[in-house]
Amino acid sequence: MSLNPQYENIGKAFVQQYYAIFDDPPNRANVINFYDATNSFMTFEGQQIQGATKIIEKIQALSFQNIARVITAVDSQPTFDGGVIVNVLGRLKCDEDPPHSFAQVFLLKPNAGSFFVAHDIFRLNIHNAA
Amino acid sequence: MSLNPQYENIGKAFVQQYYAIFDDPPNRANVINFYDATNSFMTFEGQQIQGATKIIEKIQALSFQNIARVITAVDSQPTFDGGVIVNVLGRLKCDEDPPHSFAQVFLLKPNAGSFFVAHDIFRLNIHNAA
Repeated sequence: MSLNPQYENIGKAFVQQYYAIFDDPPNRANVINFYDATNSFMTFEGQQIQGATKIIEKIQALSFQNIARVITAVDSQPTFDGGVIVNVLGRLKCDEDPPHSFAQVFLLKPNAGSFFVAHDIFRLNIHNAA
Repeated sequence: MSLNPQYENIGKAFVQQYYAIFDDPPNRANVINFYDATNSFMTFEGQQIQGATKIIEKIQALSFQNIARVITAVDSQPTFDGGVIVNVLGRLKCDEDPPHSFAQVFLLKPNAGSFFVAHDIFRLNIHNAA
């Protein structure tokens, strides 16, 4: 495996696809397909979760239904195993909550011609206001 | 290589050590030692840079001298090659500029009993206010 020259497009396409599913309430549970049964890690607001089943349980237990999301930056880099690391900054508004900025990192690993999310770290910037 | 159970401590220790050097103007150039001559990638505010020499050139070309920094979150995960992915959120104030929140991701790879920064993505949240 080596650097994938398409890393920029892969990162952008992934972000578009992932949030399109995540932000659509009836479709949200399908983000499970981005994760591996055992080899995926998520850290959600500091809580550590491993494996697709537990990750989707966490996502489905979130208390909001609707998300309005604006992406402000997507920075991608190729990794030497053919994967892509993607850093996303943006803002989101859940149901009637006030809007918050967020940061989310994904490490995509190649698998059978596609990619899975090996690492996912999400944080709202609630305590991070300048 | 496998998961390093010390990932949490490694992430926190790295962040403490890296910013202690970065935020000390006479010492700042020594952050070069965290990067590999060719196998390190940095994305700084969207600008892509590869290799320790170019990375340190970029860092030394930054226009500020003094940084006051507050770390608000450090989330680490172990990678299957024995490395650690670290996501940092915080606030910083450069010289007399207004304070800004920032997000920075590091992917640390194991090398000869230590680690180097294989991936580094930095963004101020300037355009990301809620």
